[in-house]
Amino acid sequence: MKKFAVLGFGTVGSGVVELFYRNRKKIEEKAYCPLELAYILDLRDFPDSPYADKLTKSIDTILADEEVSIVAECMGGVEPAFTYLMQCLNRGISVVSSNKELIAQKGAEMLAAAKAHNCNCFFEASVGGAIPIIRPLHRCLAANDITEIDGILNGTTNYILNKMLTDGMDFETALAKAQKHGYAEREPSADVDGHDACRKICILSSLAFGKHVYPESVYTRGIREISLEDAFAADTLGGAVKLIASVRRLADGKILPSVMPTFVPYGNMLSHVDGVFNCVQVNGDAIDRAYFCGRGAGKFPTASAMMGDVIEAAKAQGTVLSQDWVDTGSQDFVAGIDELVCGMFIRFAENENTDENCEFFDNAVKELTGEDTDIAASENACYIALPMTKAQRDTLLQKAKDAGYEILHWMPALAE
Amino acid sequence: MKKFAVLGFGTVGSGVVELFYRNRKKIEEKAYCPLELAYILDLRDFPDSPYADKLTKSIDTILADEEVSIVAECMGGVEPAFTYLMQCLNRGISVVSSNKELIAQKGAEMLAAAKAHNCNCFFEASVGGAIPIIRPLHRCLAANDITEIDGILNGTTNYILNKMLTDGMDFETALAKAQKHGYAEREPSADVDGHDACRKICILSSLAFGKHVYPESVYTRGIREISLEDAFAADTLGGAVKLIASVRRLADGKILPSVMPTFVPYGNMLSHVDGVFNCVQVNGDAIDRAYFCGRGAGKFPTASAMMGDVIEAAKAQGTVLSQDWVDTGSQDFVAGIDELVCGMFIRFAENENTDENCEFFDNAVKELTGEDTDIAASENACYIALPMTKAQRDTLLQKAKDAGYEILHWMPALAE
Repeated sequence: MKKFAVLGFGTVGSGVVELFYRNRKKIEEKAYCPLELAYILDLRDFPDSPYADKLTKSIDTILADEEVSIVAECMGGVEPAFTYLMQCLNRGISVVSSNKELIAQKGAEMLAAAKAHNCNCFFEASVGGAIPIIRPLHRCLAANDITEIDGILNGTTNYILNKMLTDGMDFETALAKAQKHGYAEREPSADVDGHDACRKICILSSLAFGKHVYPESVYTRGIREISLEDAFAADTLGGAVKLIASVRRLADGKILPSVMPTFVPYGNMLSHVDGVFNCVQVNGDAIDRAYFCGRGAGKFPTASAMMGDVIEAAKAQGTVLSQDWVDTGSQDFVAGIDELVCGMFIRFAENENTDENCEFFDNAVKELTGEDTDIAASENACYIALPMTKAQRDTLLQKAKDAGYEILHWMPALAE
Repeated sequence: MKKFAVLGFGTVGSGVVELFYRNRKKIEEKAYCPLELAYILDLRDFPDSPYADKLTKSIDTILADEEVSIVAECMGGVEPAFTYLMQCLNRGISVVSSNKELIAQKGAEMLAAAKAHNCNCFFEASVGGAIPIIRPLHRCLAANDITEIDGILNGTTNYILNKMLTDGMDFETALAKAQKHGYAEREPSADVDGHDACRKICILSSLAFGKHVYPESVYTRGIREISLEDAFAADTLGGAVKLIASVRRLADGKILPSVMPTFVPYGNMLSHVDGVFNCVQVNGDAIDRAYFCGRGAGKFPTASAMMGDVIEAAKAQGTVLSQDWVDTGSQDFVAGIDELVCGMFIRFAENENTDENCEFFDNAVKELTGEDTDIAASENACYIALPMTKAQRDTLLQKAKDAGYEILHWMPALAE
């Protein structure tokens, strides 16, 4: 029998508790041992909860019980979660966390502590909610040289962008609808300004490339700048606007993480990920590419990921299965956004010369890059799949302006 | 340092060897120990291979070396692979296999041997090639009550069906093209008649529901029956024809595995999986649904999955992480295809009364089920999303015949 504790009895924490009791038989079969939920830590009182007898307000109660071998944290925020979990790890108690803010800030330290104390630090729930991505990325794909990851990692913004396109809502109306359905917070900045996706791409980047990437190093733009016109113009040219969190390895060995609204051509499966779903595309030298898709948030989807980690922590007690990455003390392996080489989507003031738009951008791109490439253009936008450097993009935009185009917006395009 | 051996030096085996040497540094970092490829077993001679010094024709050479702790098998076929791997497992040597035929026939026995001898039996590469699906399904999603799995598990047939639709090729021409590109064997029956997909859904079913499902128990139909007209008519009604390997749990607790050409509405991500890609949709009580997508076959994609398993076997030595399922000695928990409740796609001889077709099927379905439902109909087909029992389907088809429709083909429809 193994005892575990849950830290935080909010939406996710109560989901973990309910899921455990609902599927307990199956869960214990998978864990190869009986499990006991011994404590639930929360500062609030829950007198009417059927689990009231398990509630405690002090981490010391949990630490004092030497039989507790796993702690599942869903408190959110860096402190006091970090202090609590380090106390656990330093005692050899395995830790499971859904806390992306914490892992994005303190992952290297926590993983080192787990390794040093022969226990595990798992955080499958911190990225992509229910989607198995952490374990697949560093275990199933462990033999690959990972070259790029692109993901829809925030369900709120994906819901909003999707609503704009399918229901013709502007950003503010779609946001209000998301708030009404509980998909967005009343203070939506963490989602719509890209900070949430930024933390998640930090975690995936650190995992894939072995060095801790901090949120401050990641070029991050949210979706407030996206208009209904962008969404429709993109659709006309065969793509969807998505908030893409991305990291790619450059030729010089640096990595370039970013969060930006991006044109995703319909040939790429990420373009078909709708509503609050998340999806991650991983490119590696042996696999080519793989996709992982599912519900990126929510009580039970997140609880599912956490309980999967609890089961593995129980099964693997004494074996370190969690990976580690190092904090190099500097972020000089992170490239700036000016290094980005990408295709682009450009929206300009409407004119009636669709054929001439095609011809203009065809010629301009050929002149700049020497390559004949198929450029899709409509009366108010064009999509250039060919990857270009910043210098080439700047020159192209200037040329367009000089030719009389009123450039309204541009964004990078993902490869098909 | 841990020694491992590769059994079978064909396409996949040589991929494993090449991938190991190419990414050795990264692989050893992930495994937390140095790895040595000690032996390659093959009955053929490879005098010019750079790995000639590692080749052996006898499993006894490998078994005699007590330092070998992992064996990666990619020989294919049940024997002699089964005998060799049982010898390994019974000595506590962890086994990694890409052999779907073997796992579908002998999985229960091998997993029991692994558990008894405190070692692991992994087979991530046996289903979905490069796609992480085995480990995500029974580890990441371990806390879920799995209710249904639907997958595109055979790249050859997906390539053929895709070519039919996009290039207007008939089945024979598309098959010839697949053979030319090396995507299909000269004797294509294992792929086009569904046997390959059948083995894979057996493995996923056994894993998800804990009891060994044998290929003989699975209702299996291939894609030879699919015409160009089916593909086009489906597209007109908003869906793609895919060979779907599926398993669902019924209300009475039985499970219903099947392999059939299926209408997949464009609202379901499986419809957008093109070319030789595979994709698996998993439905569970906590996650709702998740998708896993990638290259389902090929030298390096398969080698990636195998090396991922080798790394985990090295890391987890002494800890049993592989699941187990039981052979109950009977297949009476497997329901027959007549129990299938599903929507349907019906193609009939063309007429010009599209509006009347809509009305006829609307009325007929309402009469049968009591439900008002949206039915899409064209001049030669209709798509009914509402799930119906076999009795209802039979009655509907008879009614249509009685009303003068010449029914040319029907197939089940997947939920959106």
